[in-house]
Parts: sequence; C-alpha cells; structure tokens
Amino acid sequence: MRIDLPLEDFLALPDTEKVAYIGDRGILYAQQFRRADLDRYNEVADAARKLARRPQGSAFMSGLLKHRMALNFFVQPSSRTFMSFNAAEALLGLNRMSVRDPAISSMSKGETLVDSVRTFISYVDLIVMRHADDDAAATAFWTASRAHRRITLPGGEKVPVPIVSGGSGTTQHPTQALLDVYTLERSLRPVGGIDGKTLLLVGDLARGRTTRSLAFLMPEYRDVKLVFAAPEKFRMGQDVRDFLDARGVPWSEVESLDAGIERADAIYMTRIQDEHDAGKQKGVHEKAEDRFRFTLDHLDAMKPHAALLHPLPKRDEIDPAVDDVEDRRVAYWRQERNGMWMRVAILAHLFRVDGLLLDAASAPVGG
Amino acid sequence: MRIDLPLEDFLALPDTEKVAYIGDRGILYAQQFRRADLDRYNEVADAARKLARRPQGSAFMSGLLKHRMALNFFVQPSSRTFMSFNAAEALLGLNRMSVRDPAISSMSKGETLVDSVRTFISYVDLIVMRHADDDAAATAFWTASRAHRRITLPGGEKVPVPIVSGGSGTTQHPTQALLDVYTLERSLRPVGGIDGKTLLLVGDLARGRTTRSLAFLMPEYRDVKLVFAAPEKFRMGQDVRDFLDARGVPWSEVESLDAGIERADAIYMTRIQDEHDAGKQKGVHEKAEDRFRFTLDHLDAMKPHAALLHPLPKRDEIDPAVDDVEDRRVAYWRQERNGMWMRVAILAHLFRVDGLLLDAASAPVGG
Amino acid sequence: MRIDLPLEDFLALPDTEKVAYIGDRGILYAQQFRRADLDRYNEVADAARKLARRPQGSAFMSGLLKHRMALNFFVQPSSRTFMSFNAAEALLGLNRMSVRDPAISSMSKGETLVDSVRTFISYVDLIVMRHADDDAAATAFWTASRAHRRITLPGGEKVPVPIVSGGSGTTQHPTQALLDVYTLERSLRPVGGIDGKTLLLVGDLARGRTTRSLAFLMPEYRDVKLVFAAPEKFRMGQDVRDFLDARGVPWSEVESLDAGIERADAIYMTRIQDEHDAGKQKGVHEKAEDRFRFTLDHLDAMKPHAALLHPLPKRDEIDPAVDDVEDRRVAYWRQERNGMWMRVAILAHLFRVDGLLLDAASAPVGG
Repeated sequence: MRIDLPLEDFLALPDTEKVAYIGDRGILYAQQFRRADLDRYNEVADAARKLARRPQGSAFMSGLLKHRMALNFFVQPSSRTFMSFNAAEALLGLNRMSVRDPAISSMSKGETLVDSVRTFISYVDLIVMRHADDDAAATAFWTASRAHRRITLPGGEKVPVPIVSGGSGTTQHPTQALLDVYTLERSLRPVGGIDGKTLLLVGDLARGRTTRSLAFLMPEYRDVKLVFAAPEKFRMGQDVRDFLDARGVPWSEVESLDAGIERADAIYMTRIQDEHDAGKQKGVHEKAEDRFRFTLDHLDAMKPHAALLHPLPKRDEIDPAVDDVEDRRVAYWRQERNGMWMRVAILAHLFRVDGLLLDAASAPVGG
Repeated sequence: MRIDLPLEDFLALPDTEKVAYIGDRGILYAQQFRRADLDRYNEVADAARKLARRPQGSAFMSGLLKHRMALNFFVQPSSRTFMSFNAAEALLGLNRMSVRDPAISSMSKGETLVDSVRTFISYVDLIVMRHADDDAAATAFWTASRAHRRITLPGGEKVPVPIVSGGSGTTQHPTQALLDVYTLERSLRPVGGIDGKTLLLVGDLARGRTTRSLAFLMPEYRDVKLVFAAPEKFRMGQDVRDFLDARGVPWSEVESLDAGIERADAIYMTRIQDEHDAGKQKGVHEKAEDRFRFTLDHLDAMKPHAALLHPLPKRDEIDPAVDDVEDRRVAYWRQERNGMWMRVAILAHLFRVDGLLLDAASAPVGG
Repeated sequence: MRIDLPLEDFLALPDTEKVAYIGDRGILYAQQFRRADLDRYNEVADAARKLARRPQGSAFMSGLLKHRMALNFFVQPSSRTFMSFNAAEALLGLNRMSVRDPAISSMSKGETLVDSVRTFISYVDLIVMRHADDDAAATAFWTASRAHRRITLPGGEKVPVPIVSGGSGTTQHPTQALLDVYTLERSLRPVGGIDGKTLLLVGDLARGRTTRSLAFLMPEYRDVKLVFAAPEKFRMGQDVRDFLDARGVPWSEVESLDAGIERADAIYMTRIQDEHDAGKQKGVHEKAEDRFRFTLDHLDAMKPHAALLHPLPKRDEIDPAVDDVEDRRVAYWRQERNGMWMRVAILAHLFRVDGLLLDAASAPVGG
C-alpha cells in the first residue's frame, strides 16, 4: 500500500493512473468510481437515511465508528461540504476536530504540507480536506501511504489513514459528484434513473469543479447526453470534452439556458466562480448573464419529471422566487441534504462498515 | 407554521407582532415570555442543575438529545454565550458544530443570509446564532419556517428547525434576559423573589441589549420598580421607557449609583458597549465615570439580601477588589453558570424534553 | 487550595516556589515532576495505549470522563499540541470546546485574562491553554484557585478547575517534556532506559522551550549527561546551566552535531524558533547552519540503540530523506503519537481516574 514513487513522480502521473494507487482507500477523483460503486454508494446512502428515521437505527449508526477520530482540514471557505461532513461523521459516531485556518497551525512556522499531514496522521483516523492546491489531496494520500501508522479495519486488514478530498484546487470535487449522481438518480427514479437521460450543465463550466467531476462520471451510465450552456470564456474544458469523446459520451454546446431546457431531464446550474480570479475586488461579484439565469418561466419549460440542481452557494443565476416554489422539480435544497447521506455512505465504506449499515436497514424492524 | 409573508413584510412588523409567529418554536425576543413561561424555565433550570450532581442524572440528561445536531453560528465576538450554549448542548448530549467566521463560510462567495441559513437547516436540528444585524435572527426564523425540512418532536409534531438568538444587533439578547431573571429569582428567593422588588440598572443602558431585554420582562412580575443610573448619552431608550409606561411599570432615573443603591434589591451593572462605536480605536476603551463605578464601599451600602449582577464582560465599572470578596451578594460569577443551566432549560423546552427532565429530577432517587 | 497571595506576588515567586502551590492539581512547570511521577505517567500512558487496542478497552476509557467538559484555549499557533490534547480528551470521553482566536472572544471587548479565565471556569471542568505570555498559565491557575467553583473528584475531594499549560511564552512546555521523557524511556528500554545515558540537544536551545523543559527533568534520572550543540546566539540559557550545575547534572557544549553524535544515546533536534523574532518577515525563515543539520550520514554515526527525537514542526534541520528511512532509531513520528498517550495519562491523573485505567489494562481480559 506504500506508494514507492517519489512525491514529484506520483503527482506527475495523470489522474487516471493515480487512481490505480488509490483503490478504495481514499476519495480523490471522480474517475475512481465505476457504475457498481455508484450504485452501492447510493444504496448505502438510502440505508443511512432510512436508519436515521428511528431512534434504534440512529443509535446503531452512531455506534459504528465511535472509537475513530476525524480531522476536517478545510483551509478554503466552505459551509456545505464542511457541515455535511461534520453531520455525517456525527451520524456515524466519529469524534471530530477541525483545522480551518493555516495561521493557527504549524504551517505558520514553516512546516511543509507533507509534514503537516504526517502529523495529523499521528492523531486521527481520517482526514477530510479542502485545499486551494490541485495537488493537495494527492500529496496527503501519498504521505499517508508512506507513514508507518496504519488503522485496522473490521476484517483485520491494516490500511493507511484514509484521505477524502472535499475539493482540491479548481479541478476536482469528487464527493460532490457522488451526491449529484445520488440526487439525479433519486429524482429521476420514477423515469428509470440517469440511464438514457439528457443533462444540461449551465454557467461557469471552465472553473466549476462540480460540473467537471460530474462529467467524468457520465460514461458509467448508458446513453447519457450532455449539453453545455456557458459563456464563451467559461466553456467546459478541453480535457473534459476530449474525455467524453474518447468515452463515447455525446455532448453539445448551446447558446443559452432556453436553447437546452426543453430537451433536458436535469438542469445543473452553477455560479460564476470568481473567487478564483486574481485581483478580484472583495465583495464585488460578477453578474450572471440573463441567458444563463434560471427564472420562474423556465419552470414552465421544464419536462414534468425533470430536476433542477445546483451545488450551491448560488448568487443571481437562479431567481430567488424559484427557491420558494412548491414544485418537486426544484431539487437543490434536497441535494444539500443528500450530500450528508452520501457522505455517511462514503465514510461507512472507507471504514468497511457499509455492509453492517445495509444489513441493519433491511432488517425486519427497520433499524 | 410557514410564515406566509414576504421577508420584508415580516421584518417590518413590530417585534410584539412577530412574537405571535414565533410561539415557542424559537427564542428571539424577551417579549415572548409570560410569567408562567419564566417560572417554568426556572424550574427546569433548577432540575438540570440537580440532575447534573449525580452520574445517573448526568447520564440521563446526556441521552435526551444525542441524535440531534446543533449549529452555533456566532459571527460576533462572544465567550460566555458561545461557551454556555456549547456546555448546555453537551449536557443534553447534542452533537455540535460551529461557524464563527463568515470569511470561512460561503458568505465569502456572495451567498445571502437567507441562503446560508437555508443551507444550515439541511444539516442541523437547531441554530443558535449571534449576529451584528438586528434582523438576523428574525430572518433565520422566517427562512426556517419556509424550508421544507421539519424536525419531529417526541409527540410526533413536525416543526421547523428552531432558531435561538444569542444576541442580535444592539437590541435583543433574550436568553441573557432569561438567565438574569433566573439569577434574580434565585438570589431573592429568601425574600420572596422578584415580585415587589426594586432593580437598579447602571451604565450604558442605551446600547446594552441585556438591560433592554430584562426591562421588557418586568411587567410579568408584580410591583417591580426600575431605577436607571446612566450617563446622559447612554440613557435607557425611549422605546423601553414608553413600553414600561404603557405596561404600568414605575421607573425613575438617578444621577449616580450612590443615589439608587440603598433602595435597590438588585443592582445590575453594565459595561460601556463601545464595540458598537464606528471609528473606535482598537484596544482603547472608554472609561466608566466614577459615579457609575461599583466599589467595595457600595457593598456596605447594599441591602443585606440584595444581589449584584453584571452580564459580563466587565472592564473598570466594577472594582476588581469586589471580584474576590467572600460575600453572597456578589452574584455575577454565579450568574454566568446560571446561564448554562438556563440554556439547558431553553433547549430542553424547544425539543420538548423538559417534562422528562423535570420528572427525572423529582424522582425519589433524585436522578 | 486558595492561593492567598495577590496575583502579582504569586507571579513574582520563582517557579520552584510556585510548584509548591500547584501540587498535582495542574501542569505548569517541568520542575513539578519527581521520578516517581514520571514513572507513573509513563506507566499510565502505556496502559492507555494497550486499552485502546481493543474495543472493550476503548469503550471503557471513553466512559471515564464523559460528564466533563474541556476547554482548549490556544491563542498561539499549534497543531500537534492542540490535536493531541483533543485526541486524548476524546479517548477519555471528555466533551470539548475550543477558543483559538482572542478576536472572537470577549478579550476583544477589553476583558482581562483573569476575568476570561474566571468565566471559562464557569462552564468547563478543565482548561488546556497555550499563550504567548510567560505568566499566562500561572495567572490562570491563580484565578482557578480563587474562584468559588470546585469540581468533585471520584474520592469526593473538591478541587479547583485544573489548568494544563500547553506552552506558555518562551520558557515552558511541560507536557512536551513528559512526552519526550516517555519517548526516551520507551526507545531506550532495551538498554535500561534514561538512567546513565548521554543526551545531545541540538539547535535553538535559547528559545526552545521543549529542550529547556526537558533539561529541568534530567536530575530525576541517575547519571545522565547532557551535551548541547547550538549556535553561539542560541546557547542554552544561563538559568538552565546554573540549575544543572546546582543539581549535579554534567553538561558540556560542542561545536556541531558531528562533535557529539557518537557518544549520544539520544539526539534531540530543534528548530530555529524565529516566530519569536520581532520584525521577522512572514513566511521567510532563518536557515539552520549545516553543522547543526541532521542528514542520512548521521544515521551511520549514531549508536545502534540510539534514538532521534524532534518536537516538530521541523524545517530544514533534518534532511527530508531521513523522514522515510526504515530505521527504528528515527523516533520523531512515534514521539508525536506518544504525546497523545501521555496526554491521556496527564488528564486521567488530574481527574484521578488513572488508577482505574491501570487496573483495566492489567485485567486478565486485557481491557
């Protein structure tokens, strides 16, 4: 399990090759997941949701990992990812601590990320991390693989401390991709799930790590079509388009939300990610163009079974009037809570208690 | 339970009308509480204090809310309120997380308070919040009322995620008012409680949200008299004086602490709240005038049964020599710990486990 | 237990006299510990480590202090000490909260440290603190001794809220000294432990509170020799040298790591503590001189049973190639985790449950 490459060589590998080292001992890239994995995670998330409805189920879950300690190491702003991981950890009984400001950590004394992670590993059994650097999660995974410390899984297997990326740089946000898939599958369940559907991705597709990660998962589904609606400067990246071509996932580009909405089974809105702009003035945000803004009129144009997603936070790209509508198709608030259940599933799997969770949920007493 | 007014219209209502929407599904305004509520909270706080003395009682309490998650959302400096809520939550077994710096949350990405609160609601079962904006807690309450997410109370009732204000802007600090009343009642118990007593409020009454909130509760007690001792520029606000007039609570103003101390059954000191001053120089604080400073001499002038309160933090308005005196009348340190017990009572009531807590405390084994 | 001296007089006492007031109701100075104490702490740390290996042992430990609340009050940067205390608290079942930024506490409203600590005591049963001020922990201990609030220990004894220093100013870091001793004892166990050994301390000995604290403990061991290798400007302080002379501990100084390594049974490396430099440019760090840097060559020169320690964080004073070597003598990562077990022992002792812990670990079922 030790990665026998120098750090620079490991980081220089294409993500698709790094994936072979990761196996299911960490969550770093959307490309890690095969269809069977996705189906399994969805099933475990459903089981967690079901168990939490009853006190006995809830008590069962919160006993599963009560002797483990999680570190939430988030040195970029985050509400949703940070909070939903915290909530998921609590549901599984994990002890938790967090580091959110590098200025209060030893990094302010000149410590490298490798040494910091090596130190974290001395005290915790799991690291969930968000970092501005594209390579941060991979660096942490490499470090964990080379540390002497191992944790013992229920079957007796000894593994490195697992690393979960809660967003690394501008490129990847794999747990968001899992919760998006889960929300799509649940929303589209009455019409057969994601297979065969058309997804419209709207907004800042160049810097939106959520839409990138989601696109990487689409080859796992049959006959999915992708439609991109983005301003020219925020086009979906060449690497993703090449990936889709290579994997035979049809995609097209349209000029506006209007031009794609009628054929879409799901619309995935995103925000202009101007926090990545160098020299951006604080508190001043770039406005969404009208042709990429979702309004009440678009609800009328949507298919009856379609779902409207957004990874949130949003700004003006969705009219606030849409927030409040009594319409099941507005899925983005449910999507947030789905993130919590999906993160329960992710953690349960990393510690190999997902089977226990599934068994408990399907027991006659229903947990 | 959904507030069917637009946010602006709800916020524009006078607080006394907002109270009708709040019921006992949140703690936002001192004006919410009737005498029966106050007596009940005091009784539950006493019960929690009693239960915590024994391991079995403590274990019982910490099982009551162990499947709930609290968010402590404090974006203004706070030690006491933050810590006492944390301690109260832990006593009841609540899982906890906190957001203390808006710069590390999605607000830094342009998210509105409504959207942030709506997000918090996706993950937590309770929001305790302190915010610089007078309307923040009401905005959060409105948001919770309109979200689809509901929590299920022991009796099966489904309610919005409860909102508790830990201080909102300069106007309200309702849980402080409850703990102040609790401290007054306990301190004055040997002489019949608050009814019929004279309270002397001293210091910055204009911007002291604690004294304002306390004043709003006084009509609930019989024959209470209020005496205000404040520098001219920090006079008790016209709105409070009008309220007291309308409710028939006699009040008067005096020139100094000396002028009011002999008739007072309780003295409530406050600090000059210069953190609200725009352009204030950091670390430089306005000094209290001598005629509003409490010294050892004032202890001699106090009635034998009187109580000296202060919401803390204090600066120079109480001589540090008073901190250390062996004198039961110096109540402000006890007042802090009373805050923890009162917050246990508040949370127990919001989740409708206060009855269980009272039953356990009155059981023959005493918890 | 009340310290009947004014604060100024207490702080003016030499540390060796303060120790008499502290007893074993707090951890403030390395000078507090006698050999029997050190042996006991090591034994309890070993027991905690053993218990944690099995679910029953772990469950037993996490029940010991589940009704206590710890405050981690760290207003200087810290990763290791902060995290290892958090982990240790969780292992013992303590509830935890933390204050890491004085700007979000009431200190920003002009509150004194005495008042802040007095307030913390109202809500918590333990304060672990790191502070820039040399006198901070002693001030907190004095405050706790004079507060009315007492906690009740298992035998019924009522004691002030215990204070543990996680590093105070530039002078003391007593829990680090304990974990260093524990690591030395464990590493040197095959050759009879610390007694009779030669320790080489390298680097910034002037400002390294870890090496100072460690030196203060050496008279507790028989026939230990100390060798200091430091640049002239970072020589071990006169006070420590005088202390060693007075206690008959032989010490010498050498010009380089090379000059001391062959005779050393343990090498204790330290970092240049330039965070204490006024006017230091942020992110720019002083480089270690080559003659005080540990490289792979030094491994060849080390005795076969010797141990290489470092309190971490490190910068360039140890070649990163050493981090990864498969060599038991490289002890600094184990030293980190030992810190967690030692902190379990410290807390268990302060709350007088260390006996229970030892009993459980030596039970036939092995916890």
